[in-house]
Amino acid sequence: MAEPNFQEAPTAVRSRRSGGRSARVAARRARLPLGGVVAPAVITRKIPSYELLDEDALQRLEAHAEWILREIGIEFRGDAEALRLFKEAGATVTGARVRFDTGLARALCSTAPRSFLMEGRDPAASITLGGDHLVLMPAYGPPFVTDLDGGRRYATIEDFCNFVKLTYASPWLNHSGGTLCEPVDLPVNKRHLDMVYAHLRYSTKPFMGSVTAPERAEDSIAMARLVFGEAYLEDHCVIQGNINVNSPLVYDDVMSGALKAYARANQSVVVSPFILGGAMGPVTQPALLAQAHAEAMAGIALSQLVRKGAPVVYGNFLTTMNLKTGAPTFGTPEANLSTFAIAQLCRRLGLPLRCGGHLTASKVADGQAMQESVASMMAGILAGTNFVFHAAGWLEGGLTIGYEKFAMDLDHCGMLLRMLRGLTIDDAGLAAEAYREAGPGEAFLGTAHTLAHFETANYLSDLTDTDSYEQWAENGRHDLERRANRCWKQMLADYQAPPLDPAIDEALRDFMARRKAALPDQWH
Amino acid sequence: MAEPNFQEAPTAVRSRRSGGRSARVAARRARLPLGGVVAPAVITRKIPSYELLDEDALQRLEAHAEWILREIGIEFRGDAEALRLFKEAGATVTGARVRFDTGLARALCSTAPRSFLMEGRDPAASITLGGDHLVLMPAYGPPFVTDLDGGRRYATIEDFCNFVKLTYASPWLNHSGGTLCEPVDLPVNKRHLDMVYAHLRYSTKPFMGSVTAPERAEDSIAMARLVFGEAYLEDHCVIQGNINVNSPLVYDDVMSGALKAYARANQSVVVSPFILGGAMGPVTQPALLAQAHAEAMAGIALSQLVRKGAPVVYGNFLTTMNLKTGAPTFGTPEANLSTFAIAQLCRRLGLPLRCGGHLTASKVADGQAMQESVASMMAGILAGTNFVFHAAGWLEGGLTIGYEKFAMDLDHCGMLLRMLRGLTIDDAGLAAEAYREAGPGEAFLGTAHTLAHFETANYLSDLTDTDSYEQWAENGRHDLERRANRCWKQMLADYQAPPLDPAIDEALRDFMARRKAALPDQWH
Repeated sequence: MAEPNFQEAPTAVRSRRSGGRSARVAARRARLPLGGVVAPAVITRKIPSYELLDEDALQRLEAHAEWILREIGIEFRGDAEALRLFKEAGATVTGARVRFDTGLARALCSTAPRSFLMEGRDPAASITLGGDHLVLMPAYGPPFVTDLDGGRRYATIEDFCNFVKLTYASPWLNHSGGTLCEPVDLPVNKRHLDMVYAHLRYSTKPFMGSVTAPERAEDSIAMARLVFGEAYLEDHCVIQGNINVNSPLVYDDVMSGALKAYARANQSVVVSPFILGGAMGPVTQPALLAQAHAEAMAGIALSQLVRKGAPVVYGNFLTTMNLKTGAPTFGTPEANLSTFAIAQLCRRLGLPLRCGGHLTASKVADGQAMQESVASMMAGILAGTNFVFHAAGWLEGGLTIGYEKFAMDLDHCGMLLRMLRGLTIDDAGLAAEAYREAGPGEAFLGTAHTLAHFETANYLSDLTDTDSYEQWAENGRHDLERRANRCWKQMLADYQAPPLDPAIDEALRDFMARRKAALPDQWH
Repeated sequence: MAEPNFQEAPTAVRSRRSGGRSARVAARRARLPLGGVVAPAVITRKIPSYELLDEDALQRLEAHAEWILREIGIEFRGDAEALRLFKEAGATVTGARVRFDTGLARALCSTAPRSFLMEGRDPAASITLGGDHLVLMPAYGPPFVTDLDGGRRYATIEDFCNFVKLTYASPWLNHSGGTLCEPVDLPVNKRHLDMVYAHLRYSTKPFMGSVTAPERAEDSIAMARLVFGEAYLEDHCVIQGNINVNSPLVYDDVMSGALKAYARANQSVVVSPFILGGAMGPVTQPALLAQAHAEAMAGIALSQLVRKGAPVVYGNFLTTMNLKTGAPTFGTPEANLSTFAIAQLCRRLGLPLRCGGHLTASKVADGQAMQESVASMMAGILAGTNFVFHAAGWLEGGLTIGYEKFAMDLDHCGMLLRMLRGLTIDDAGLAAEAYREAGPGEAFLGTAHTLAHFETANYLSDLTDTDSYEQWAENGRHDLERRANRCWKQMLADYQAPPLDPAIDEALRDFMARRKAALPDQWH
């Protein structure tokens, strides 16, 4: 994998810690000889966002979202507390249905921070969500794993740990992710413990905890407390939950329960409407945009009712289907247009945005995989997203994480981070002296300007093949997937675990053992 | 290949023809029972362009381009006429070097039309270059051809004809291209005749003639006159020449000679600086942008000195190199940023823009091919280009045209054309009634709104695989390249030649025979 070859220094975001216990925790963490984080944890966007829709169109979408919230409403099923909170806040509650007067949901969202710091256990790995910042996270959720050697199979905890390690080793991902894959060799009701442990043990980057049941969210938060300190979480975000809306227009009690658990602990939730147009919403993009906006606002409103100021991300997973077969499709023009538009809606709300991803329906890391992934990711990045799920490894509509695809996506992430730096038009870049040295018809390769800049001018990919046909043929005619196979193996071979205070490690293991002993295994 | 499934009617642009001979020619052409053009010949852009740079940065680049034109100058080698024309126009000419006072080149460019009609021999295939229009053209120039069955080999006239036919059959390409591949089985000094004939015989879409020698340009124009009528070309553009600048800062007499031949005949030239950063210019993008701008303006200025108002396209081929190996690289972040910027510079000049393309260094139609191609093409389309060379088939840095890559690129062109239509936020799209019909938690698949819109809502790709893993495995585990192999073969099998008036066909064949007899074969 390419070394970071551009000039942006990996600036660490330092949290503003006050004295007392927090200061002691910080000091303890700072003493740890934590492994070097190779990623630029802080990625700052220096290019403008693409503005697809004009003011009229945006107002029309916002008005339609308000209409959905007011006339149709959102259901919070099986969650009496949520219904009570909404009622107290002035919403109209009928059964599980919550209806919001125009402007109410938006007003409730307004107490969420525009951006926030999310801390890694190495402060140098901390990230900012929101503003001009970008956070890239690997795939989330696949039950299967694939690689060129072993083919497609159910994922295991070993695969999970491998992807935590690969993410840690990547210079381009600054978030360790959540359920990188489902370790199906572990019981359903206990695997979250091993996943959270792996993030904390094998990486220092910020990570996500479990959301599959409120008590698993609590376990995840408890483990974070063991590492960061009990009280530290009160005013520092160190863990995150991904709340997928049960679209259309529903939050079930699992999702609202996990949302409340994280918000209550002042930890971050990402509220992601999950909509395949035609199934969980109408087939036309304008409707889907308004619906996604309404669904996101309702969930974010709940987080703020649970705890005003709790850090949230406005999420989005809105894609298309093949309407002849019902199969989900990714990186499509309709989905990409919606990405541009949802980003505009989110910016007007003033919240951190999740969208984009290296998404594909392809079963293998082929041309389709990269065509769909790159189109989807270019749209997300140009749209101005702050947070990208599935930035590496996603295949088969999220059913599979691929080792080769992971390496291929990483390389493209590196390219996009270079693109985010934009162009600086200054004397050094304009190179007047080079034209005085090499005139018309002359080669610029030997000029002083070229020699001074050639190492840093361009992103350098080690995965892309630019050899001559003859060299390439002599080297075995390897396509990108084959080269990526070598790449991830080398990354794993080179991986070095960051140190972890043995006392903390023991506390984590002890917690896991106790929780596992307290519950019978569940396998579905 | 997917049928055009979106609603934009393939509107034919009708030329405003006056009476006399032109009218008679038009009538003769209109009488021909020309084959149906399946492409929407007129593709109108309904999304905004991405504006990367701010006013200050753009002014700085423009000032630097003027500095290059004024202080360094451009050489027109071996072309006394060009030097005389520039001198008469007020430039400072020293040997072959032409230096332009600030504003002179820009002023000379100002007589070129902002947009123009380019006619196909079927009026329904005519295109507009400039404004809100987009023209997509296949690969140009590869000496090699490849497909999954036969592998990589030198291209022949049979391959050339195949790609003309595939382009004609494509609903997404509205320009037949020029040297789709080099038919190396024909003599160097005669193959242009067969290429022009193939465009005129097997397609009705607008095409490019030869530029490899001024007399070959003249032959190409003469053949167009046989089809469109001798005088018709005086005020109608029906053929085009691609003028690659001999960057850095040089036009040789072959390029300036071909440029003058087309401009003199009032036919279009595309003036394309051809710059690999670090070789034909400095290694930093700001310098390359200013240089490309200066080179393009100088060539366009010459076209206008030859014939005021001659139709031109402001071209651009500006990419990067792997600076450790010297190999050209494509779809890179630096190249894509430059695409955004050059489009802004061109818009300020007010001319039709050529940039973008499905470009790649990959030898095969793999993940790398699509990663690089899609990134490059997304950048070009979002930048606001009017004309894309290499929109289909390009491999190996332009050394090879691939049959499978061609089909894969076509499909992505279809997606981009859908993206260009943008989002219309209206009642039909907002689908209020669908929410009344299907509430929270209910499926939208059966709503009246979905049934009314599902056939036209989304671009439908036949090449993308969205089957389940099990179906896909049962069907042979084909990747995109393998599916594309079936696709182009089916397209060729289904191809039907458009009719051509036998008298015109005979005139073309007679012209070719006479020209071939008049010259001894040259093979290099």
